[in-house]
Amino acid sequence: MTENAFRVEGMSCGHCKAAVEGGLKELPGVERANADVAGGTVEVSFDGSMVDTGDLEEAIEEAGYTVVA
Amino acid sequence: MTENAFRVEGMSCGHCKAAVEGGLKELPGVERANADVAGGTVEVSFDGSMVDTGDLEEAIEEAGYTVVA
Repeated sequence: MTENAFRVEGMSCGHCKAAVEGGLKELPGVERANADVAGGTVEVSFDGSMVDTGDLEEAIEEAGYTVVA
Repeated sequence: MTENAFRVEGMSCGHCKAAVEGGLKELPGVERANADVAGGTVEVSFDGSMVDTGDLEEAIEEAGYTVVA
């Protein structure tokens, strides 16, 4: 399992947390996603043979948030 | 049709707007609900013979927000 943390802009409430985590968990290979709204970060555990960080960033963006480099 | 505006604390994003408006529109007699996130207000048009302002406030609170007097 691979772990990665993303810095994410625009999360402001529990709905945002649920939207980001839900979007990530829809991806095959994502085992765990935990968004910290106050800290502006999302930690993801995933199977790197099934999904890569580009896919994860795309899911976060599709949920309506911006991944900061 | 009766119109009422509520001051609501805690709305921070489009999800919050949808949650408050959706909670209100579930009530019989509510014709229109429009939340202004930036202004912290919710305007509601409703049939006063079917629903009263107490019911509306309760729906807003149940959606997770605080109505300010």
